Amino acid sequence: MAKSADQKSRTMHIGLVGLGKMGGNMRERLRRAGVDVTGYDPNPEVTDVADLAALAAALPTPRVVWIMVPSGAITDQVIADVAAVLEPGDLVIDGGNSRFTDDAVHAAQLAEKGIRFVDCGVSGGVWGLKNGYGLMAGGEAADIRELLPVFDALRPEGPRAEGFVHAGPVGAGHYAKMVHNGIEYALMQAWAEGFELMDARDDLIHDVPGVFKAWQRGTVVRSWLLELLVTALEEDPEFADIEGYVEDSGEGRWTVHDALDHAVPVPTISAAIFARFVSRQKDSPSMKAVAALRKQFGGHAVRKA
Amino acid sequence: MAKSADQKSRTMHIGLVGLGKMGGNMRERLRRAGVDVTGYDPNPEVTDVADLAALAAALPTPRVVWIMVPSGAITDQVIADVAAVLEPGDLVIDGGNSRFTDDAVHAAQLAEKGIRFVDCGVSGGVWGLKNGYGLMAGGEAADIRELLPVFDALRPEGPRAEGFVHAGPVGAGHYAKMVHNGIEYALMQAWAEGFELMDARDDLIHDVPGVFKAWQRGTVVRSWLLELLVTALEEDPEFADIEGYVEDSGEGRWTVHDALDHAVPVPTISAAIFARFVSRQKDSPSMKAVAALRKQFGGHAVRKA
Amino acid sequence: MAKSADQKSRTMHIGLVGLGKMGGNMRERLRRAGVDVTGYDPNPEVTDVADLAALAAALPTPRVVWIMVPSGAITDQVIADVAAVLEPGDLVIDGGNSRFTDDAVHAAQLAEKGIRFVDCGVSGGVWGLKNGYGLMAGGEAADIRELLPVFDALRPEGPRAEGFVHAGPVGAGHYAKMVHNGIEYALMQAWAEGFELMDARDDLIHDVPGVFKAWQRGTVVRSWLLELLVTALEEDPEFADIEGYVEDSGEGRWTVHDALDHAVPVPTISAAIFARFVSRQKDSPSMKAVAALRKQFGGHAVRKA
Amino acid sequence: MAKSADQKSRTMHIGLVGLGKMGGNMRERLRRAGVDVTGYDPNPEVTDVADLAALAAALPTPRVVWIMVPSGAITDQVIADVAAVLEPGDLVIDGGNSRFTDDAVHAAQLAEKGIRFVDCGVSGGVWGLKNGYGLMAGGEAADIRELLPVFDALRPEGPRAEGFVHAGPVGAGHYAKMVHNGIEYALMQAWAEGFELMDARDDLIHDVPGVFKAWQRGTVVRSWLLELLVTALEEDPEFADIEGYVEDSGEGRWTVHDALDHAVPVPTISAAIFARFVSRQKDSPSMKAVAALRKQFGGHAVRKA
Repeated sequence: MAKSADQKSRTMHIGLVGLGKMGGNMRERLRRAGVDVTGYDPNPEVTDVADLAALAAALPTPRVVWIMVPSGAITDQVIADVAAVLEPGDLVIDGGNSRFTDDAVHAAQLAEKGIRFVDCGVSGGVWGLKNGYGLMAGGEAADIRELLPVFDALRPEGPRAEGFVHAGPVGAGHYAKMVHNGIEYALMQAWAEGFELMDARDDLIHDVPGVFKAWQRGTVVRSWLLELLVTALEEDPEFADIEGYVEDSGEGRWTVHDALDHAVPVPTISAAIFARFVSRQKDSPSMKAVAALRKQFGGHAVRKA
Repeated sequence: MAKSADQKSRTMHIGLVGLGKMGGNMRERLRRAGVDVTGYDPNPEVTDVADLAALAAALPTPRVVWIMVPSGAITDQVIADVAAVLEPGDLVIDGGNSRFTDDAVHAAQLAEKGIRFVDCGVSGGVWGLKNGYGLMAGGEAADIRELLPVFDALRPEGPRAEGFVHAGPVGAGHYAKMVHNGIEYALMQAWAEGFELMDARDDLIHDVPGVFKAWQRGTVVRSWLLELLVTALEEDPEFADIEGYVEDSGEGRWTVHDALDHAVPVPTISAAIFARFVSRQKDSPSMKAVAALRKQFGGHAVRKA
Repeated sequence: MAKSADQKSRTMHIGLVGLGKMGGNMRERLRRAGVDVTGYDPNPEVTDVADLAALAAALPTPRVVWIMVPSGAITDQVIADVAAVLEPGDLVIDGGNSRFTDDAVHAAQLAEKGIRFVDCGVSGGVWGLKNGYGLMAGGEAADIRELLPVFDALRPEGPRAEGFVHAGPVGAGHYAKMVHNGIEYALMQAWAEGFELMDARDDLIHDVPGVFKAWQRGTVVRSWLLELLVTALEEDPEFADIEGYVEDSGEGRWTVHDALDHAVPVPTISAAIFARFVSRQKDSPSMKAVAALRKQFGGHAVRKA
Repeated sequence: MAKSADQKSRTMHIGLVGLGKMGGNMRERLRRAGVDVTGYDPNPEVTDVADLAALAAALPTPRVVWIMVPSGAITDQVIADVAAVLEPGDLVIDGGNSRFTDDAVHAAQLAEKGIRFVDCGVSGGVWGLKNGYGLMAGGEAADIRELLPVFDALRPEGPRAEGFVHAGPVGAGHYAKMVHNGIEYALMQAWAEGFELMDARDDLIHDVPGVFKAWQRGTVVRSWLLELLVTALEEDPEFADIEGYVEDSGEGRWTVHDALDHAVPVPTISAAIFARFVSRQKDSPSMKAVAALRKQFGGHAVRKA
C-alpha cells in the first residue's frame, strides 16, 4: 500500500527504474543524501521489489518515478509499463539519454493518463556517485520545484546553479544534454588531434604524457577531460593496448541533425563524429573511390584489397 | 654544335629533360605537332643524346630546355645541371609539379648566369598525349611569347585560351597548377562521399554504378572525373579489388599551407587531404586517445589493439 | 472525356501539373519530342486546362500525371488533389525535389486508391530545355517501362544509360537526386575555395578568370560547373556585383542527415552546407562566443557590435 | 658591475626583457616568489634599467635573461640586441609565442657567441600573475635544471609536473605551446558551436547562460574555458555588445602547417581557424562564387553587392 502524503512531507521517497551502471550509482547517492529510494530492475540481484506493481505500491502518492534505462525502444517500453501502474497526478522523470524529440511523445502519452513528465539530462558517468551528477531538467516549473530534493541529492556539492538547471519546457533537459555531448565529442577530438600531432613529432617532443600533465594547472586548456587524458596516458603512455575504434551513442548525430535543421554551422562537432565513423571502418569505400579515380587519370598505383 | 638562329626561325627546336610517363608522352605530342625535340633522360633506352652537354650542343641558340622531372630535390639538381651547359640568353622551363615557392629560387639561380626562366603547370596525366595538356605558365611576357609554339603543340585542340594561360610572373604557373590540384582533391572527395553514401544505402539504391552513369549528360555535375568514376565502376562495380589507401603528391598540402598564410578558409580542400592521411594509417592515434577518454569517464569498453 | 487506350498506344499523352521554371520547359521539351502534354497550373496564363478535373478528363486511361511543384507541403497537397481526380490504375510521377522519405508516404496514400507512384529526380536546371534533363527514377519496373517514352523525351541525346537510371524502388529516384545535389554542393564549394585563394593572391595570379578558362580543356578538373564559372567570371570578373549570400534548398542537409543515420563520413558535403549557413548570417553567434572567451582569458580586444 | 656567482647561489637573479601585459605580471610573480628580477623595457615608466647594457651589468654571471616580447621580427631583433651585451656561458630564454622553427635559428645565432638558449612556452594569459603560468620548456637538461627556481616561481602552486614540463630539445617548448594553442582554438570553437545551437533554439532552451553555468560541476565538459564562458555570459547574456570578429595570433595556423607536413589529420583545429578567417571578412569571395554558379545553372536569384 502506498505511503500517505504526510509521510512524504517528512522525507522524499522515489522510485527508480533501471539499476545499471548509472541507475545503481544514483540510488546509492540518493540514499546517502537521505532520499528514500525503491529501485526496480529486471536483474533480481539488484532490484528492491519484484515488479513495477510492487514499486508503485511502495511509493507515497503522488508517486515520483525516475527512469534510468537505455534510450529508444527500451525507454519507450519502460515508460509505457510504468504508466500502467501509476495514477493521475504521479510524476515520471526520464533521466536516460533519450533524444529530445521523444520527450514530447512520452509527455503526451503520460498526459493521457494524467501523469506528469519531466525530462532530465544527466552527466557524470561512472564518477557521478562520488562527484555528483550535472543535471539539466525540462518541464513545468511546479514539477521541477517538487523534485528539487532529488536534484539536490544527485547534483555535486556547491551552489545549485553550478550543477543543475531548469533549462526550459519538456524536452529542454535532454536537448541541453544532447548539446553537452555534442560539445564533448568535439572537445575530445581536439585533445586527440593534439595528441596525434605530438605523437608524430616524437623527434621533438620527448615526453608527450608529460606535456599533457603540465597543462593541468595555470593553462587555458585545463579541464577534466585533460585530467582523464593524463590518467589514461599514465596507464598506457602510447595507447599501445587500445585500438582506435570509437563508438558513438547518438547524441552527437542528433546535435548535427538539429543544427542542420536550424541552419547552425557545427564544423567541429560534425568532424568529431565523422572521425568516429571512419574509425569503425575496416576499409573506406570513399577512399577506394579516390584511389580508383587517381588510377584512372594519372595511372597512379593502387593497393590491391 | 648549336644550330644557327636562322634554322630556328623556320621551326621550333627544344630540349626536353626527363622522359618518364609525362615527359615521354610530351616529346611524342610535340613531334607530332612539328616541334623538333631533343630529349635527354638517364635511361639509355629512351634518351636521344648521351648527356646534357650533347643536348646543349644539339639545340639552336638561344636554347630552350623544358625540364620534366619529379619536383623537389631532383628538380633542384637537374636545373643546376642544365644551367651548367647553357649560355646567357637561353631559356629554361620547369614543367614539373614544383612547389611555387621553388620557382623564385630557381629563377634567381639561373638569372645569375643570364639564363631566363619560365614555370609551367601541366595537367592531363596519362591522357595528355591524346587529349593535350592543360597549361598554366608564369614568367616574363616576352619569354612566354617565344614559347607559344611549344604551348600550342602541347595544349588541347580548340581556342588557345581554353587550354593555356599566362597566369602571372614567375611562380604563377605552378601556383595555378597547385590550386588546380587542391580543387581536384576536393572534387574527388565529393564524388567519393556520394559513392560511399549510396553504397551504404544499397537497400534503396540498387544500381550505384548506373546512377553515376546516368549523371553523365544533362546534369549539373557532369565532368571528366565523373566519366572516370563511371569507367572505374564498370571495371570493378564495388571497388572490391582496391584498397582505400590514397597517397598525395604535395600540391593539396601546399594549397592549404598558402591558404593559411593568407587567411583563406578551405574546408573542403583540407577535409580531402585529411581523409587521405587517415586512409594511410594502420591505426589512428587520435581515435586511440578518444577511445581512452571514453573509457576513463564513462567506463565504455575499448578494443584491445 | 478521356482518350481511349488505343489512341495512347500510338502516342504518349501525359498530364503535367506545375508549369513554372522547370515544368514549363519540360512541357516544351516533351512536345518537341512528340509527347502530347496537357499542362495544369494555377496561373491562367500558362495552363492548358481550367482545373485538375479537366486535366483528368483530357488524358487517356490509364492516366499518367507528372507533378512538378515545390517539395514539401505544396507537393503533399498537389498529390492529394491529383489523387482526387484520378482512378485506380493511373500513375503519378513526382518529379520535384521531394525528400526521399516523403515518397513512401505518397506512394502509400496513392496505393489506397489503387494509383501507382514513381519518383523521379530531375537535374539540369534552366538548361534542361536545350540540353535535356538528367533523370533518376524509383519505382516498380513495369511502371518505369511504361514511362520510358517520357523519360526518353526528357533526357539528353545520347545513350539512354548516360541520362537516365532506374535506381531502385520508390524513393530511390529522389535519393539519387539528393546525393547528386549533395555532391554538387561540395563541388561548388571546392571551386569557390580555389577562386578565393587565387583572388587573395592577385599579387601572383594576374588573371584569375584566365586561369579558370584555361582549365576547360585537357585538365583533370574540366566540367560543366567550371564552364559556368568561366561564364560567370566573364560577366563579372571579380564578382563585384554579387553578395556572398547563398541559400540552400534542402537536399544538402538531407544528404548529411542520412549520412549521419548510416555512419557515413561526409566532411566536404557538410562543410559546403555550413559555409552557406554562415554566408546568411549578419553576425555569427559562435564567433561572438569565441571573441568573448578570448577577452576573458587573454584580455584580447573585442569589437563592439 | 655584475654580481658574483657567490651572490647568485644564495638567490636567483635574472634579467627580463619585455614588460608588457605578460612580462610585467611575470616580473611581479617572480619577485613575490623571491627571485630577483631586473627588467628592461623601452617604456621608461616600467623599466628598471636604462638599456640592455645596464641590464647585463646588473646581473650575476653566468647571466640569465628571459625575453618576453612579440614573436617574429621583434623577437629576432631583441635576441640579437641581447646577445650583443652578453658573454659566453650566459643563458637566454625566449618565453614569447615564437614559432618553434625560429628556435633553432636563434639557438644557432647565440651558440656562435657561446651563449646558451632555452625556449619556453607560457600559458595563462592575464590570470597568470594570480594563478601561475603553465610552462613548457625546450633545451639542454643542464640548462633547464639551472632554471628550475625561475620555473618554480612562475608555475602554479601544486606538483611541479602539473605546471611545468621539459618537453624536449630546443624548440620543443614552443612546439608544445603551439599545440596547446591549436587545441585551445578547437576547444573554443566547440563551445561556440554549442552556444550558437542553443541560442538558435531559444524556443526550447529558455536559459542558455543557466545551462552553461549548470555544467560547471560534475559534468564531463567542466573546464576553465567553460567557467570563462559562464562569466562572459553573466556580463552579456546574449553577447549583444560583441561583434563576431576573431583575430588569430598564428599558433593555430602553425599547428595545421606542421600537421600537414607530418600527415596528421586535424579537422577540428583547422575548422576552428577557418571559422575565424571567415569572421573577419566583410563579404566572402567563395560564397560570391557559389552564388554566381547557382545563378548560372539554376537561375537562382543572387543578392546584389
